[in-house]
Amino acid sequence: MDAQAFREFGKAAVDFVADYLENIRDHDVLPSVEPGYLLDLLPKQMPETPETWSEVLKDIDRVIKPGLTHWQSPNMHAYYPTSVSYPSIVGEMLASGFSIMGFSWICSPACTELEVVVMDWLAKFLNLPQHFLHENEGPGGGVIQGSASEAVLVAVLAAREQAVRRLRLSQPELSESEIRGKLIAYSSDQSNSCIEKAGVLAAMPIKLLPAGEDLVLRGDALKHAIEQDVAAGLIPVICIASLGTTGTCAYDDIESLATICEQNDVWLHVDAAYAGGAFALEECSELRRGLERVDSLNFNLHKFMLVNFDCAAMWLRDANKVIDSFNVDRIYLKHKHEGQTQIPDFRHWQIPLGRRFRALKVWITFRTLGAEGLRAHIRKHIRLAEQFEDLVKADERFELIAPRALGLVCFRAKGDNEITSQLLQRLMERKKIYMVKAEHCGQLFLRFAVCGMDPKPSDIEFAWTEIESQLTSLCAEQQVNSRKAGELSELTHHLSGLHLTNETLQR
Amino acid sequence: MDAQAFREFGKAAVDFVADYLENIRDHDVLPSVEPGYLLDLLPKQMPETPETWSEVLKDIDRVIKPGLTHWQSPNMHAYYPTSVSYPSIVGEMLASGFSIMGFSWICSPACTELEVVVMDWLAKFLNLPQHFLHENEGPGGGVIQGSASEAVLVAVLAAREQAVRRLRLSQPELSESEIRGKLIAYSSDQSNSCIEKAGVLAAMPIKLLPAGEDLVLRGDALKHAIEQDVAAGLIPVICIASLGTTGTCAYDDIESLATICEQNDVWLHVDAAYAGGAFALEECSELRRGLERVDSLNFNLHKFMLVNFDCAAMWLRDANKVIDSFNVDRIYLKHKHEGQTQIPDFRHWQIPLGRRFRALKVWITFRTLGAEGLRAHIRKHIRLAEQFEDLVKADERFELIAPRALGLVCFRAKGDNEITSQLLQRLMERKKIYMVKAEHCGQLFLRFAVCGMDPKPSDIEFAWTEIESQLTSLCAEQQVNSRKAGELSELTHHLSGLHLTNETLQR
Repeated sequence: MDAQAFREFGKAAVDFVADYLENIRDHDVLPSVEPGYLLDLLPKQMPETPETWSEVLKDIDRVIKPGLTHWQSPNMHAYYPTSVSYPSIVGEMLASGFSIMGFSWICSPACTELEVVVMDWLAKFLNLPQHFLHENEGPGGGVIQGSASEAVLVAVLAAREQAVRRLRLSQPELSESEIRGKLIAYSSDQSNSCIEKAGVLAAMPIKLLPAGEDLVLRGDALKHAIEQDVAAGLIPVICIASLGTTGTCAYDDIESLATICEQNDVWLHVDAAYAGGAFALEECSELRRGLERVDSLNFNLHKFMLVNFDCAAMWLRDANKVIDSFNVDRIYLKHKHEGQTQIPDFRHWQIPLGRRFRALKVWITFRTLGAEGLRAHIRKHIRLAEQFEDLVKADERFELIAPRALGLVCFRAKGDNEITSQLLQRLMERKKIYMVKAEHCGQLFLRFAVCGMDPKPSDIEFAWTEIESQLTSLCAEQQVNSRKAGELSELTHHLSGLHLTNETLQR
Repeated sequence: MDAQAFREFGKAAVDFVADYLENIRDHDVLPSVEPGYLLDLLPKQMPETPETWSEVLKDIDRVIKPGLTHWQSPNMHAYYPTSVSYPSIVGEMLASGFSIMGFSWICSPACTELEVVVMDWLAKFLNLPQHFLHENEGPGGGVIQGSASEAVLVAVLAAREQAVRRLRLSQPELSESEIRGKLIAYSSDQSNSCIEKAGVLAAMPIKLLPAGEDLVLRGDALKHAIEQDVAAGLIPVICIASLGTTGTCAYDDIESLATICEQNDVWLHVDAAYAGGAFALEECSELRRGLERVDSLNFNLHKFMLVNFDCAAMWLRDANKVIDSFNVDRIYLKHKHEGQTQIPDFRHWQIPLGRRFRALKVWITFRTLGAEGLRAHIRKHIRLAEQFEDLVKADERFELIAPRALGLVCFRAKGDNEITSQLLQRLMERKKIYMVKAEHCGQLFLRFAVCGMDPKPSDIEFAWTEIESQLTSLCAEQQVNSRKAGELSELTHHLSGLHLTNETLQR
């Protein structure tokens, strides 16, 4: 493909994307395909000779689009939002147009330096503590990781290596493998699966401590666990707190956790993948309490900052603790300015060597939306969730399972779990809206998250009408069924009086 | 930004990218900026109100482009290629336009299924063994990881967990931490730094075994190491072989390594990040020897397949070994079809939970270039490297340090390291071409890799002229300097005869 064909293909693709996003409400949010649909539609081998871009674009419309779950639809209410914005899409394309690697400064100075700039911009926008800024020339700073999972894993691995080094000095009688065998980490039983997975990957068990009834993890639970573990000869390493949790967006109590971590030389990491966006709002300043005492923090820009995945911000109080743990350098990676300046070589801050120019889409998005645009977006999510919460509260057939938190409402149909489960099944089959279920203390509930690129009050109305009308239908059907069951049982009783056999009845 | 503005911005950006790539030879490959240049140019805070996209695009031209190292330039000869193509850029944009998540089938069936399709296409194109195909419905298959580093880490971690489980059964007298403390892995001292880093992250030492004089790791070196380690009570887990190595693109001897691995129940992973592309060529079929005996394999599509980073293919002989090791599921991630079909839930095949729709750019690139286009691209790299090799051989001031391998030529100026080092320094200062140095057995050498989106024979001529003319200048300057030094020493001798003090002389 030459540059001229690219100009045509690229512009057609821009229109394709604009048309798709402008008309996203035309599609059911969930696709109507069965597993394997695409395997049957596509050839078993790549074509030997080139095909034209227009054929390919037609196929994207014909075979790919029908198999998409539309995450940018306002009828997406599953998981947490994965929001894109128009400027971010352009930023991603420009970055792939440059296709540079950013593993060291010399590899593309603009890549490293723009990341320093936007991570400081973001830290200030979110009102994070000063020691997380690059401009302070301290050992702290921010970095873009691929995902929250990676950010958590980086914190877990760095904390592990730091603990091993510390213990080798303080307890020289222990071998390295004895030390590693005693390491233990903590999180809440409400935390994201990626935290437990980080423990598996790091070969360091992560104890999932029981959150309170309000689903919040507090210092006393951590204190109790640490006391028990230390008594049993274990070595506490890191606690991963959540702001907020995946199930209900509960906020762990950072202040009391920090106190226990400080007393026990335990690394405190905060996974604020979703709620971190609210740090930007004065009315949510309570959420930031204790952040000046944490060692590291992660926040997903695709959740609230309208920058498309992947783009997970991570801040470290002391980046040297990660660099020390991960640096395995080779001569071909060295460059003249290495280590001489305050410009980080971000490859030492992360797991992979390679890195994309992700700062570009962040910069473009921040500049074209402005701080006021970003704040307005978060506030809109909160307002729409309030609207949904009011609708739930006003319908006595439903109940909230936890307080609304930011853009998330957790609710269920009153009564046993079966009705909520059946309701979700109907909604999934109808494919108009997409929610997922979760469970707490044996109670099944539905998570309604405000998502999509540009959700509106009418979308919330639409979702609510869908939910409550399906509950109405479900209950009506159940009444019919139970009346039928009653009639059938009466009939059976009557027939059995006639001494007819079951076999006759079933014919 | 609304859809209309996006249509304008997007199309302007398409032209910007096309102009950039068409005129990439106009720029020095290395930028003329000093560390911190961008920090001085940009504001310390994000703007409060939105700026127009045209201002931003102007700034990309004004402040970003001057800070880029131009990886798509044909004058890039450092590291290995990171090649993009026009269709891949469009694919990346479309994927960010959809901005879906692909961590399970229901999250977007097209995302998972297209990945199954293109990974099988690629496996067939590369003539990989049958058991790496999804269509065989066996336990094997391919997956797209973010980078070679991640692929290697996945193999290392899965091998580690499988070994722990095996040993817990076979040696129940050992505790888990005793087992973990005895685990050991192997690679060559020529392997990429990401392999050593995987060992650090996995808390499992990776012994870097001495490659032969030809820089190849063979079974006998592995056998020797394993015998020693087993005698010392250690437990061999995995060997990571390279096809080819980062320094010189040497090919480890897979057959003899496989024999030792099979005898010792050791996982054999092959890092073919660069050379994997040559599996597609009949004339390179020798390279595929032994692949039917390996457990896992990784290959970077951005190196030879014209798909932009990040896109690292990984194949597993038995994916269940990874899934078993990594699966930590939650109720909100389950879906109706899970585990019922042959369609994988790729989140269990990788480290993070989230995943982008990377298969889309692969599919678009493969279809618009065709198998013949991809093979032609690899053959072009080889031909251009041959052209460069001939130029080196024809100039008696230079010597090859290893045989040319695919698109890589390793060479040096004859004589001591100082001259090669100074030559590279001059070249870096002039910024016309970019190479990096490496070292083997005390000999410093330069790596000349054919890179860029569309390199031509004239680009090789350009690079060679730059290199040899700079050596000529360097030698001339050195002769002048040594003559001057000679004259100065004579003059000093003469002056000292006049009993003048040094102070007088220096005035």
